[in-house]
Amino acid sequence: MAIAVYPGRFDPVTNGHIDIALRTAKLFERLVVAVVEMPQGSLFSTAERVDFFTKAMKGYDNVSVTSFSGLTVELARRESASVLVRGIRAVTGFETEFDMALMNKRMAPEIESMYFMSSLEHLFISGSRIREVARLGYDVTNLVPSHVAEALKKKFA
Amino acid sequence: MAIAVYPGRFDPVTNGHIDIALRTAKLFERLVVAVVEMPQGSLFSTAERVDFFTKAMKGYDNVSVTSFSGLTVELARRESASVLVRGIRAVTGFETEFDMALMNKRMAPEIESMYFMSSLEHLFISGSRIREVARLGYDVTNLVPSHVAEALKKKFA
Amino acid sequence: MAIAVYPGRFDPVTNGHIDIALRTAKLFERLVVAVVEMPQGSLFSTAERVDFFTKAMKGYDNVSVTSFSGLTVELARRESASVLVRGIRAVTGFETEFDMALMNKRMAPEIESMYFMSSLEHLFISGSRIREVARLGYDVTNLVPSHVAEALKKKFA
Amino acid sequence: MAIAVYPGRFDPVTNGHIDIALRTAKLFERLVVAVVEMPQGSLFSTAERVDFFTKAMKGYDNVSVTSFSGLTVELARRESASVLVRGIRAVTGFETEFDMALMNKRMAPEIESMYFMSSLEHLFISGSRIREVARLGYDVTNLVPSHVAEALKKKFA
Amino acid sequence: MAIAVYPGRFDPVTNGHIDIALRTAKLFERLVVAVVEMPQGSLFSTAERVDFFTKAMKGYDNVSVTSFSGLTVELARRESASVLVRGIRAVTGFETEFDMALMNKRMAPEIESMYFMSSLEHLFISGSRIREVARLGYDVTNLVPSHVAEALKKKFA
Amino acid sequence: MAIAVYPGRFDPVTNGHIDIALRTAKLFERLVVAVVEMPQGSLFSTAERVDFFTKAMKGYDNVSVTSFSGLTVELARRESASVLVRGIRAVTGFETEFDMALMNKRMAPEIESMYFMSSLEHLFISGSRIREVARLGYDVTNLVPSHVAEALKKKFA
Repeated sequence: MAIAVYPGRFDPVTNGHIDIALRTAKLFERLVVAVVEMPQGSLFSTAERVDFFTKAMKGYDNVSVTSFSGLTVELARRESASVLVRGIRAVTGFETEFDMALMNKRMAPEIESMYFMSSLEHLFISGSRIREVARLGYDVTNLVPSHVAEALKKKFA
Repeated sequence: MAIAVYPGRFDPVTNGHIDIALRTAKLFERLVVAVVEMPQGSLFSTAERVDFFTKAMKGYDNVSVTSFSGLTVELARRESASVLVRGIRAVTGFETEFDMALMNKRMAPEIESMYFMSSLEHLFISGSRIREVARLGYDVTNLVPSHVAEALKKKFA
Repeated sequence: MAIAVYPGRFDPVTNGHIDIALRTAKLFERLVVAVVEMPQGSLFSTAERVDFFTKAMKGYDNVSVTSFSGLTVELARRESASVLVRGIRAVTGFETEFDMALMNKRMAPEIESMYFMSSLEHLFISGSRIREVARLGYDVTNLVPSHVAEALKKKFA
Repeated sequence: MAIAVYPGRFDPVTNGHIDIALRTAKLFERLVVAVVEMPQGSLFSTAERVDFFTKAMKGYDNVSVTSFSGLTVELARRESASVLVRGIRAVTGFETEFDMALMNKRMAPEIESMYFMSSLEHLFISGSRIREVARLGYDVTNLVPSHVAEALKKKFA
Repeated sequence: MAIAVYPGRFDPVTNGHIDIALRTAKLFERLVVAVVEMPQGSLFSTAERVDFFTKAMKGYDNVSVTSFSGLTVELARRESASVLVRGIRAVTGFETEFDMALMNKRMAPEIESMYFMSSLEHLFISGSRIREVARLGYDVTNLVPSHVAEALKKKFA
Repeated sequence: MAIAVYPGRFDPVTNGHIDIALRTAKLFERLVVAVVEMPQGSLFSTAERVDFFTKAMKGYDNVSVTSFSGLTVELARRESASVLVRGIRAVTGFETEFDMALMNKRMAPEIESMYFMSSLEHLFISGSRIREVARLGYDVTNLVPSHVAEALKKKFA
C-alpha cells in the first residue's frame, strides 16, 4: 500500500493544511508531513513548525511529522513514499505546482504527485495571509489550530 | 484500501488518459474507469468508447472499465469508491475541475477528488484535439492507442 | 443617488444571483434586475425566469425585475442607471467580464461596470451547473430558492 | 527571408486582425493571410471573408489572402512558409494557442509559431463580439474596416 | 447613502488610480482614499504618498485622502464606510483580490468589496512599473499626475 | 531584413533560453541576445552570464551576446532592431509579458514584441528553478549547457 509525503512550509500550519493532511491520511497507508527548513528565515522556527503540526495530528496514528532540507523527492525516497501530496487553492498556485510536478517527475519518475483542491471553507487561508492578519492584531482562532492561534498572539503581542 | 473511479468522456481515449489510468492503478487497490454516456452525441458510441479503453487496459488486473449515466458520485458510491481521479492539463481545465470538486464534495462529502498533472508528453493531447486533427487527415498514431488510431482512420476515410 | 442594473440569463436564478442582488440593493438607491431574452433557447422561458427572480426579491422595495433584448447599455440608459453590476466566480469568468466591460465602456462611457466577488458558499453554483445536476436527479434545494427547486423537479420529472 | 502565414476565421475581419497582419507584413518577406473554411457554418461565406480581408490589405504588396481547409501546417508547407503568426488577446486565448503550438510543432517541427500581443485599442475586439453587438444593432464602424461595417449593417437590417 | 474606501499603496499614485477614484466618487456619497503605511519601505514616504493623491483630488469635494495602518476593514468601520473599492488590471491581480475579499468578508461581514476593471488606457500602468521605468530614466508624464512625474524625476536625478 | 533582440536575465542561461535564441536566429537576419545587468544581485555576474550565453551560441554567426542596463527599447534602438523576442512558458508569465509589451509599445511604437511558446521539453525549466535545484545538489546536466552545469556545481560545492 502507498505511503504519501505532504511537504510544505507550514509557517504556521493552518486549518487548510490540516484538512489536506486528514484527507490524505484516510486514503493512504501512511502519511509523512514534511516541514521544509527555511534558512532564508521564517516566522516560526523549524522546531516550532514541526511541533505545531505534530500537536494537530495527535490521535492520527498513521501520520508522522518530520523536517527536511534538500530535494523533496529525496525525502520521499528515504521514506519509501510513492506519492507527493499537495493542496491547490487557486490558478496561480496551480501553475507553480504544475512546474514542480514536471520537475519532480524528471528527477524521480517513480514518485507520483497528486493534488487536492482546497475545501471551500479554507479557500482563502494561506500561511502568508495568516501571518499578515495576525500581525495586524486579528484573532485567527478558527482559521488555525488553537495552539497556533495562541502562539501567534504571543508572537505579535 | 481505497478504490478509485476515473470518470470521463474518452471520445476517444488518448495516451494521456491511459497514462492517468496507469498512474492511478499503481496507487490504489482497484480502479474503475467510468465512461459517461453522451445522449447529446459523440464521435464514438458508448460501447465503442468502453471497448477502446478496455483493450488498452488489458493485462492490468485491478482496472475495470464501465459506462454510466447520472451523477459521478452516485457511480462512486455504487462501486464503494472513496476517490474520484482526474487529470489536469491547463489552467482553464483547472477551474472547471475546481467547481466540480466543490459540487461533488457537497453532494457526497465522503468521496475525495484527487488530481494528477498531465505528463509532459501528453500535455497538448485532448479528445477534442484528436478528433479535430484526425478529421483533417492527420495520422494520430503515437497520440492514441493503435486500435484507436485505426478506428479514427476508418471513421474519417 | 445611483441606480444599478444587474443583467443576466438567470436560467434559473440561483442563491448566488440573489446574494449579488441583495448586496447591490443595499448599496444603491434602486436595483433593476434585467433578465435577457434568449431566442437561442433556454431551459425556462423569459416569463418564468422573470417570475422566479421577482418572487425571490419580494419584500425588497427598491428592487424590480424586468426582461430585455438588445444591448445592456441601452437598457441601462432607459432605466437612468449609472452602474452595471455583475458577480464574478472565477478567472475564466473574469476575462469575459473584462472584455464586456471594455466594450460597454466604449458604447456608453457614462455607465460604469462594477463587480462583486461571489460569496464563498455560492462559489461553485452557476445556472448551467444547476441545470446539469438537476437534470441528473439531484435535489438542488439550498442552492436555489425553494420555488425554483420545485420548478426544476417538475421540469425533469 | 522568412514567409509567414496568418491563419484564422476572420468572420468578419476586425481592425485587430488587420493590425496583426500589418505588423507581420513589416517583419517578414511575404505574408499569406489564410481564411479557414468553416463547413460548420459562419456568418459570412468563405468567399466574403477572403474578399473582406483582401480589400483591407489593398496596397500592401507583400500580403496575399487565400482560403484553406485541412491542417494549417500543410498550408504553411504549400506556401513555403516557416512561420505561423497569431495574435493573443487574453489568458484563455493564450492556453488554446499554447496547445495548438505544441500540436503544430509535433506535426511540422520545421515550422515556427510566433505571437503578437493585441494592441491596446483592439484588446476587446473579437469576431464573435463584433457579430454579437452588430446583431443587436450597434454600429461597429471604427472596430472593423468600413466595408465590413457596411456588410454587417446589411446582414442585420 | 454609501461611503466608500479605496485602499492602496499608491507608491506613487498613477493615472489609473485616479481614474478609479473618480469613477467611485461619482457613484458614492463620499470616498476616502486610504494610503497604507509601509514600514517595510517604500519609494515615497507615507506623507508624500498622501500629499500626491490629495493634490490630484483637488476640487472633488466628496473625496478625502488619509493614511492608515492595521486592517483595512477596521479603517472602513472608523469611516462608517460600507464599501471597499479596488481596481483590477489582470488575472493574477484578480486572484489576490478574490482571496482578500473573502478574508475581509469573514472579518467584517457588513462591509462589501466592489471592483472596477481598469480602463483601457491604464491597463499596463502599475505603481511598480512606474517606479521601474522612471528609475531607468523614462519620462512618465501622461502616466501619472504632473506633480508626481516631477517628483519621480527629482528622485532619480 | 529584421534584426531581433532577445533580452533577459539568463541567471544562468538554460536549454530553454537557447532554444528560443536558435528559433529566433533562423527567422531573422541578426539576433542580439541582451543580458540585463542586475545591480540588485544575481547568482552569476553579468560577465559570467554573457560568457555562458556566448559559449552556447558559438558557431551561429548571426547571433551576438551583449549586456545592457536601462530600457530594453533603448537597447533595441541602438542595435537598429525592430523586434523584441521573448519566450512564454505559462499563464502567469503571459500576463507579465502582456503588460511589458504594452508599455514598450508606448515607449517605442516602432518596435514590435513577438513571442515564442516554450518547447515541450523546456516547459518547466526557468532560471530560478535551475538555481533552486542546483543549490540542493541536483545535477542539472541536460537542462542547461554543460559548461553552465559545471559552473553551478562549482558554485554550490
